[in-house]
Amino acid sequence: MADDKKLTPQGEDFSAWYNEVVLRAELADYSPVRGSMVIRPWGYGIWENMQRGLDGLFKETGHENAYFPLLIPMSFIEREKEHIEGFEPQLAVVTHAGGKKLEEPLVIRPTSETIIMGMYAKWIQSYRDLPLLINQWANVVRWEMRTRLFLRTSEFLWQEGHTVHATSEEAEEHTRRMLGVYRTFMEDWMAMPPVTGLKSDSERFAGAVRSYACEAMMQDNKALQAGTSHFLGQNFSRQFDLTFQTEEGKEEYGWNTSWGVSTRLVGALVMTHGDDNGVVVPPRLAPTQVVIVPIWRKDDQAEAVRSKAAELKVRLEERGVRVKIDDRDHLSPGNKFYEWERKGVPIRMELGPRDLKNDQVVLVKRVRAEDEDKKEFLPQAQAVDEMPARLDALQASLLETAKARREANSYRGVEDIGQLNEIMESGGGFVYTGWSGDPEVEQRVKEETKATLRCIPDEGFRSSKAPTKCIGGGEAKMEVVWDRAY
Amino acid sequence: MADDKKLTPQGEDFSAWYNEVVLRAELADYSPVRGSMVIRPWGYGIWENMQRGLDGLFKETGHENAYFPLLIPMSFIEREKEHIEGFEPQLAVVTHAGGKKLEEPLVIRPTSETIIMGMYAKWIQSYRDLPLLINQWANVVRWEMRTRLFLRTSEFLWQEGHTVHATSEEAEEHTRRMLGVYRTFMEDWMAMPPVTGLKSDSERFAGAVRSYACEAMMQDNKALQAGTSHFLGQNFSRQFDLTFQTEEGKEEYGWNTSWGVSTRLVGALVMTHGDDNGVVVPPRLAPTQVVIVPIWRKDDQAEAVRSKAAELKVRLEERGVRVKIDDRDHLSPGNKFYEWERKGVPIRMELGPRDLKNDQVVLVKRVRAEDEDKKEFLPQAQAVDEMPARLDALQASLLETAKARREANSYRGVEDIGQLNEIMESGGGFVYTGWSGDPEVEQRVKEETKATLRCIPDEGFRSSKAPTKCIGGGEAKMEVVWDRAY
Repeated sequence: MADDKKLTPQGEDFSAWYNEVVLRAELADYSPVRGSMVIRPWGYGIWENMQRGLDGLFKETGHENAYFPLLIPMSFIEREKEHIEGFEPQLAVVTHAGGKKLEEPLVIRPTSETIIMGMYAKWIQSYRDLPLLINQWANVVRWEMRTRLFLRTSEFLWQEGHTVHATSEEAEEHTRRMLGVYRTFMEDWMAMPPVTGLKSDSERFAGAVRSYACEAMMQDNKALQAGTSHFLGQNFSRQFDLTFQTEEGKEEYGWNTSWGVSTRLVGALVMTHGDDNGVVVPPRLAPTQVVIVPIWRKDDQAEAVRSKAAELKVRLEERGVRVKIDDRDHLSPGNKFYEWERKGVPIRMELGPRDLKNDQVVLVKRVRAEDEDKKEFLPQAQAVDEMPARLDALQASLLETAKARREANSYRGVEDIGQLNEIMESGGGFVYTGWSGDPEVEQRVKEETKATLRCIPDEGFRSSKAPTKCIGGGEAKMEVVWDRAY
Repeated sequence: MADDKKLTPQGEDFSAWYNEVVLRAELADYSPVRGSMVIRPWGYGIWENMQRGLDGLFKETGHENAYFPLLIPMSFIEREKEHIEGFEPQLAVVTHAGGKKLEEPLVIRPTSETIIMGMYAKWIQSYRDLPLLINQWANVVRWEMRTRLFLRTSEFLWQEGHTVHATSEEAEEHTRRMLGVYRTFMEDWMAMPPVTGLKSDSERFAGAVRSYACEAMMQDNKALQAGTSHFLGQNFSRQFDLTFQTEEGKEEYGWNTSWGVSTRLVGALVMTHGDDNGVVVPPRLAPTQVVIVPIWRKDDQAEAVRSKAAELKVRLEERGVRVKIDDRDHLSPGNKFYEWERKGVPIRMELGPRDLKNDQVVLVKRVRAEDEDKKEFLPQAQAVDEMPARLDALQASLLETAKARREANSYRGVEDIGQLNEIMESGGGFVYTGWSGDPEVEQRVKEETKATLRCIPDEGFRSSKAPTKCIGGGEAKMEVVWDRAY
């Protein structure tokens, strides 16, 4: 039963490490349905905490949740030309239902712009109904040929925000606001610091005017697009006749945004903080923040240890800490330690007969494999009182470490494709260069280095000295970030 | 804009009233997809609060959440013979995906027993892995020819619990425990008192050994099956080879349960408490519990009223009350009153310049249309301090009213079909009679009265004097409840 076989080390094969750790930390499992995964309780618990965090931020920014149909008539999704061109190869199609062939096939939503805009057109009459700020938590299907747990699956869970505004400026501002919400969430909850910026035209969402993204750097230095926010202009409004009467009494098309993050974030979390011992879950997202392992050798010690563990659990819960007691008696303490380390529980509390006598507990932080194992002996009262602060400190230190790693693997002042390729071949990272805006250059870089243009970074991420040379030769019009990506 | 047209009265046409109130309280809307509905923010907010309540009860009883695939291979769903016979007519089938015809069609889950048992078989080795207690929040599709908002839609949202136990007794006990959880939720959160009991064989879940249900009485005296809990025996375990090693080292099939409630509960809520003025939402489920309507005549009064409203909102929120200020300036106070009454917000707080001067507020409870409109003038501090208790009292009184209505429309001691039919024809209700257990009698009652056998009621609901005569003639083996049903 004890699954204490070592994981493939990250340094040896990052990709093998990732698959193993997701399975063995019981975050997810393969399913018998091609391209679909099962999210197991530990992985789903992390997703639930992500939902809680994001949902709070959405509500603070004025959004309400609603629910729209899973199945979309084919004629709806075909209306916006770029949209259908982008999504057609990935559609799953229902042709039969209720024992009959359908007159019009229905597609399983790959995203819900079309069905939602159709409803909005019905609900919105005048500027007084705007802005309309709605979010949906849902599953979507985009058929994939090559899938990876959490990172790329045919079905995934996500949220999709869809808003309508009276002016282009307001919609653009909202698109940027939600990008900021994603960045805040990733930093404050996931301890994962993304670079934010505008996507190039080739990477735009099908049907959008402009797409913005959060680009996070994984521990193999590859980029992962972790969230996107789109300014849709009036593209969908025009197709679905989504008009409103302005304050001046004119009829105008609404201005739209849409934005989403998905269970892909769970994969991003694993690749940001995990190590050779397993997953590391930041305290704010951990379903269990403290696991108490009661230890005894003789049967007559069990009762006292167990009852003290139960008491400490209650006292920690009163301080808002999520606690679990692992009192399974067919596993040795060592096997329990391995399991919770692999699952990434932030703090382990050991409690044995000697600790009871000394009124103490043993605390062990889930630190990275290469750091020393910091076993601390603490008076029980102190351990309880300090726990929220200790969890906060652990959360903060994970963000610091991830930020430092991102900066250590970012390269600025690179001026030609050869140099970029060398960086990619020797470990990769975020490479900042100048760009003329020419898609042909973007294509050439991709072919020669396998790196793609991740984004045109926002202020705050740009180099202090703006690059003047385009990486493909000639003059730079802007600064961009390149990396190989998931 | 102002939608103050009267609703069709319940007494005139209950069914028309229901459709109108769901649309005009903005709980839901029809969608362009046949049989699918859109759940609008007010309706979804109620569902979110239902989820919160249920999820807490599931976690208290030891369950964790997980997520399984939407799409199920046809061969999986076909394995349990009764199961596929029951669900086949309602399946939606994906035949094409990723631009190609699939080798094996996939069905959109109508329920997830088959895909989940397949995974459990992989995860469970020994008795130490049991019980396995997992719940899933998900959408499902069951193709319907005749649909009604919330009550019967092709796609709906629900939760489905799926558990595995080492013994038949333990699984049966868990089936009953979850029925009790549903009853608790319906009474304490929805203020809707169901009768619980066993379903007859003809109404059993396809693939179950025994099905239990919560049967609630709507205001038209029709029954609505509001939640079900199934003892599955080893029916699915055998098909999916779900075995475990017992403590004695033997190989045995696991014993399963499954149980679910859905967005149908939102419809049940509407039909339990709504009146001719609109929906009535019990405080524990209301997305907004108190709506503050600031009122002023002269522009120079606005600032003071608004700022006092904001202050009261904060003070109420500190006491855990969910508050909204309706400061839209294109609607008259009267129009706002209508709107919030229609949506069923439990308490309205009016606040004008005179109230400011007198340090008071006006409170109006959302009472039933036929009751008097209880306008109360209260000192502000008192209104704030008493609000949680007032909401609790309102919650309790809704349950009392619903219970009294159910009892007033329950009939005991009925001994023949003619008498049952008379009750059905003159208003309906729950009719308790004896039954021999003969399905032929069940069928005859249905044909002659349109009433169906709702359940074999649990202790506590049974008549003090057990009926001795079967309603179809001969001797009674048990007591049962009949009603026409949704």
